[in-house]
Amino acid sequence: MTNSQTERDSLCINTIRTLSIDAVQAARSGHPGAPLGAAAMVYVLWDRFLKHNPANPAWPDRDRFVLSAGHASALLYSLLYLTGYDIQLEDLRSFRQWGSKAAGHPELGLTPGVETTTGPLGQGFANAVGMAMAERWLAARYNRPGHRIVDHHTYCLVSDGDLQEGLSSEAASLAGTLKLGRLVVLYDSNGISIEGSTSISFTEDVAGRFAAFGWRVIGPVDGLSVSEVENALTEARSDESRPSLIICRTVIGYGSPNKAGSAAAHGEPLGEDETRLTKKQLGWEYEEPFTIPREALDAMRAARARGAGWQKDWEKRFAAYRREFPVEATNLERELSGVLPDGWEALLHGVPAATAPTATRVTAGKALNALAAGVPALMGGSADLTPSTKTSIADSVDFAPPAYSGRNIRFGVREHAMASICNGLALHGGVIPYASTFLVFYDYMRPAVRLAALMGLHVIFVFTHDSIGVGEDGPTHQPIEHVFGLRSVPGLTVIRPADAEESVEAWRTAMANSAGPTAIVLTRQNVPAIDRSAGAPATDLARGAYVVWEPSRTPDVILIATGSEVSIALEAAQQLWRDGDTAARVVSMPSWELFEAQPQEYRERVLPPVLHQRVSVEAGRTLGWERYIGIRGRAIGIDHFGMSAPGEELFLKFGLTVKSVVEAASSLVKGVRG
Amino acid sequence: MTNSQTERDSLCINTIRTLSIDAVQAARSGHPGAPLGAAAMVYVLWDRFLKHNPANPAWPDRDRFVLSAGHASALLYSLLYLTGYDIQLEDLRSFRQWGSKAAGHPELGLTPGVETTTGPLGQGFANAVGMAMAERWLAARYNRPGHRIVDHHTYCLVSDGDLQEGLSSEAASLAGTLKLGRLVVLYDSNGISIEGSTSISFTEDVAGRFAAFGWRVIGPVDGLSVSEVENALTEARSDESRPSLIICRTVIGYGSPNKAGSAAAHGEPLGEDETRLTKKQLGWEYEEPFTIPREALDAMRAARARGAGWQKDWEKRFAAYRREFPVEATNLERELSGVLPDGWEALLHGVPAATAPTATRVTAGKALNALAAGVPALMGGSADLTPSTKTSIADSVDFAPPAYSGRNIRFGVREHAMASICNGLALHGGVIPYASTFLVFYDYMRPAVRLAALMGLHVIFVFTHDSIGVGEDGPTHQPIEHVFGLRSVPGLTVIRPADAEESVEAWRTAMANSAGPTAIVLTRQNVPAIDRSAGAPATDLARGAYVVWEPSRTPDVILIATGSEVSIALEAAQQLWRDGDTAARVVSMPSWELFEAQPQEYRERVLPPVLHQRVSVEAGRTLGWERYIGIRGRAIGIDHFGMSAPGEELFLKFGLTVKSVVEAASSLVKGVRG
Repeated sequence: MTNSQTERDSLCINTIRTLSIDAVQAARSGHPGAPLGAAAMVYVLWDRFLKHNPANPAWPDRDRFVLSAGHASALLYSLLYLTGYDIQLEDLRSFRQWGSKAAGHPELGLTPGVETTTGPLGQGFANAVGMAMAERWLAARYNRPGHRIVDHHTYCLVSDGDLQEGLSSEAASLAGTLKLGRLVVLYDSNGISIEGSTSISFTEDVAGRFAAFGWRVIGPVDGLSVSEVENALTEARSDESRPSLIICRTVIGYGSPNKAGSAAAHGEPLGEDETRLTKKQLGWEYEEPFTIPREALDAMRAARARGAGWQKDWEKRFAAYRREFPVEATNLERELSGVLPDGWEALLHGVPAATAPTATRVTAGKALNALAAGVPALMGGSADLTPSTKTSIADSVDFAPPAYSGRNIRFGVREHAMASICNGLALHGGVIPYASTFLVFYDYMRPAVRLAALMGLHVIFVFTHDSIGVGEDGPTHQPIEHVFGLRSVPGLTVIRPADAEESVEAWRTAMANSAGPTAIVLTRQNVPAIDRSAGAPATDLARGAYVVWEPSRTPDVILIATGSEVSIALEAAQQLWRDGDTAARVVSMPSWELFEAQPQEYRERVLPPVLHQRVSVEAGRTLGWERYIGIRGRAIGIDHFGMSAPGEELFLKFGLTVKSVVEAASSLVKGVRG
Repeated sequence: MTNSQTERDSLCINTIRTLSIDAVQAARSGHPGAPLGAAAMVYVLWDRFLKHNPANPAWPDRDRFVLSAGHASALLYSLLYLTGYDIQLEDLRSFRQWGSKAAGHPELGLTPGVETTTGPLGQGFANAVGMAMAERWLAARYNRPGHRIVDHHTYCLVSDGDLQEGLSSEAASLAGTLKLGRLVVLYDSNGISIEGSTSISFTEDVAGRFAAFGWRVIGPVDGLSVSEVENALTEARSDESRPSLIICRTVIGYGSPNKAGSAAAHGEPLGEDETRLTKKQLGWEYEEPFTIPREALDAMRAARARGAGWQKDWEKRFAAYRREFPVEATNLERELSGVLPDGWEALLHGVPAATAPTATRVTAGKALNALAAGVPALMGGSADLTPSTKTSIADSVDFAPPAYSGRNIRFGVREHAMASICNGLALHGGVIPYASTFLVFYDYMRPAVRLAALMGLHVIFVFTHDSIGVGEDGPTHQPIEHVFGLRSVPGLTVIRPADAEESVEAWRTAMANSAGPTAIVLTRQNVPAIDRSAGAPATDLARGAYVVWEPSRTPDVILIATGSEVSIALEAAQQLWRDGDTAARVVSMPSWELFEAQPQEYRERVLPPVLHQRVSVEAGRTLGWERYIGIRGRAIGIDHFGMSAPGEELFLKFGLTVKSVVEAASSLVKGVRG
């Protein structure tokens, strides 16, 4: 390690810069300014500090690097290519085009070496906090005296925009509370955002803010100086008692004679002329775009040999660990692979059957605890609502310094950071995270839930207090549009169980669904156990919808319900039969997504196309239910905001009643009988 | 004004406390802890500083008081009742019950004296920032030497939870940048949140953070001490160069012998025994719940005489102002009333017709500017995306200190605070605020948009880059589920215009819709001007949906489209006719909400019930379109995340094409023709 900028350094940095602006220029779209300004900082990190193995981006003990400023993607792709990841120059040449590994913003799964999908600002920062938490947690659980097999850092590059988002404040405050000393954040402080100088909207003292959060703040240093950045990183790594923020003063569009230091360099190509002038000013000798000097490539590709060495060393140490701690080694490997322990489903047998009406949040909490007893990777918490969401793991303690071995995370009143941190936990691997809050506060965390779905992360979101059943807290706390909001996110599995048995099945499904996030939607209020004597078992929840009550003759009408409204539909079916000789099938439909994934044959068995008389019952917006009941079906729901009053009263006042269902069904059947 | 706690003070404070806990106890639901702890602070503010008139909660120059910690609602209702607002003891007795003015959380419109609906944490704080901005802006525009007719403060009470939310960080950072010296925030620092001590998740140095934001930080002071709070408020008011945070150390559940200082006092009634014991410990002599000592009531009802005096004085000053500045006086009155100036609609004639394909964001930007020229109350900005969202008012400057006269607000990369601040601007009155960002980032501001709808505020949300048409930025920036998300919010009017003419109509509708928020959804990419030779004029946008193309014979099929997809549907209709002798009606449906509000006769004229062959085309989720196309209609849309590639290519790859529409329509028609 050297402490001054060599010619080699300069050449490598300029190679990163020119490669990035050439990519943007070729795409005629993208962000040249941040790569030009931040290339030196990130080069120093990658060249001098980052422990990684380009040949194996999945090596578990690698350092994580998160580009929170995802718009600087060309910078990351340049580094990945130059250090020898499985991305080709052709990808950079076709930056932002269909089929390229160099997408507009970094995307997990598309590009080897990309640790998380970034672009929406603040998310990468909070993901990094989650990754650093996962590292501490696995280290606490698996490292043994003489065996540091989990032993890495999390680095993150953030922009001014990242630090303006409230999300990053939430995550930074929690990172300070948790004293995440292996988290090092490089702040590309260039004083420019899209609308111009940050002085128009962002005059705060960032250093002071992070110091107040309990961080070590280093700098400002000259982010264009290899030695200053190197010294700052050395300093940050020397103090593991708290997270570090390194403030690097840089120049957006550095090198561009006409655009450097201005918003014009941010979000569009420099243009051919300015690209040429920029290269000239950088002292770049090559006219041909995408030129990579052999010397620079050789220097940076040395990362492969270093990486192979690191991994080999770690493998040796892991072999020694395995000899001494074979069970732990096997467990760690399995947890990192995301595979559940054998027999995990049997854990759910431990959930006692509900003998009296029970809130689904209560049963779900018991299911979580049953699973937690045998699935050590399960950890999570709530945004200061654990006593209400029932998501505490009873036989564990808080995840907190200095031990970091607890499984209950105290996120504070920070829903957005909670979800984004859970994404980071899942991204790191070795953790199956869950996050809980009231359903109405899903709104505070939507961007992170969307990213969980986009990335296909195994994160479990637990939303309780799922309707006007919330009662007295009133309309601010009563979700109306939120179940649909969840259903609208591609790739998110939404489950709203109807009773205790379905609540257990919801957790079973969420655990098994490792290909993407699951949202479990639960009641505050008690609901009766469903009489399944004339229907399918609750395990059919896995099919999304099933006949929970079949009348003794061909049905005249189908009542489709979810969650707490299934018992209303069941009661209505009884009454329809008793009072009107009407045969009603009741379908419990806890999950639209699971149902849509069934073969057509099954779907048509549950909802026969010939039977048009259909009523839906759900204590939320009716918008969207036409998918199953058709234009002429009847949707019982609530299409306005709620009120402050006891929940049972609201169900009555707003017509979410057996009577409403009976009337709707009767009028449909009458319409047919003529 | 005295500077020490008198017996009268103690009696009043205990009256507030006992009234609050009696209300919670009567409801058997609610939050006793915060009212017990914060009663003294808020009493001092209301008794010694707050300029308000209980007889006229709409008096424009009143100080604003925002209870950001909305769960402490009983405290606010107690103060409102005791100072003589139009709320009865009966309301407190029926706290949190159907029909009571004392709802679970404070609700605008329900309870005189409630300035904003609070409960979701952080929102009240950001609303208060917006109110303080509105005050500065109106003062800048209307005050004249010797005439301070806009001259008030904004006070806000926040809890630990409020300050943990990222939203409050965003708003506080902006308030510091804007040097809002008339904003005074009282922080009820009791060290407890629902999960227990704040030490488990919130160890940051709040004072340091706010100092870093550029605030004056006072305290910690003893929040239970009248004199300390009084001195702190005096100090805060003495410095108008920056906003103030007064940190008040308090005890949650103060007075409760068994629950004070613990989370147990937070969110549920103390219980009858503990209520009795608490009263005893407070030295309260009265056994009967809801007892209000005459002396306390008289003392606090003095607020009415003070208020009448303040208002009378202001009216005198306003009369003098009117004599000297009659036009300004009339304008200010009109703007405060929310009424638009005569002839405002004619301003839109100034928008030049689009002669070439134009992005709807561009035309909408012109419509905004045309309106701004004649509607001075219109002000707003974007979350650092103004050059892209085209929402700058060209002939104005930034809203910034010291002048505060500009109409362009630089919100920074803070979508959530932007929306919540706009709510505050609208709540204050005198401003019609707009907020803009990319549609995908609606996710960052959902809680505030929901509250705008719940409160019925005249806020205009402008969302551009509304589909995969965004192109190269990729899936993180391409909204899929967001138009549907907007439609799901009760009370929100969503408009997705199809071309330049509809974009102008969208702004017309949004301006006229003073009863609630409107979201205008706009393209990044150019769209052609629609050929209206065989259809209704664009002014029919006000009806939500209209026939934009009628074939020359009875239609075989209806194509329903919104926004950029209307031109695809039109082209498909031409092709269906040319190639397949199929007559297709094209319906432009820019707004579901406006359409649903039309008489059934009109709706059935546009979408005749007999015509089941229907195709919808919208570059977003198909979920919900069954409402208009039925179970057997065809929805052309996109139900998965997007990709990084040029927008036109994505439309092709994902089948949002004329060809797809033609095929879908043909197969439906063939199905009928057999």
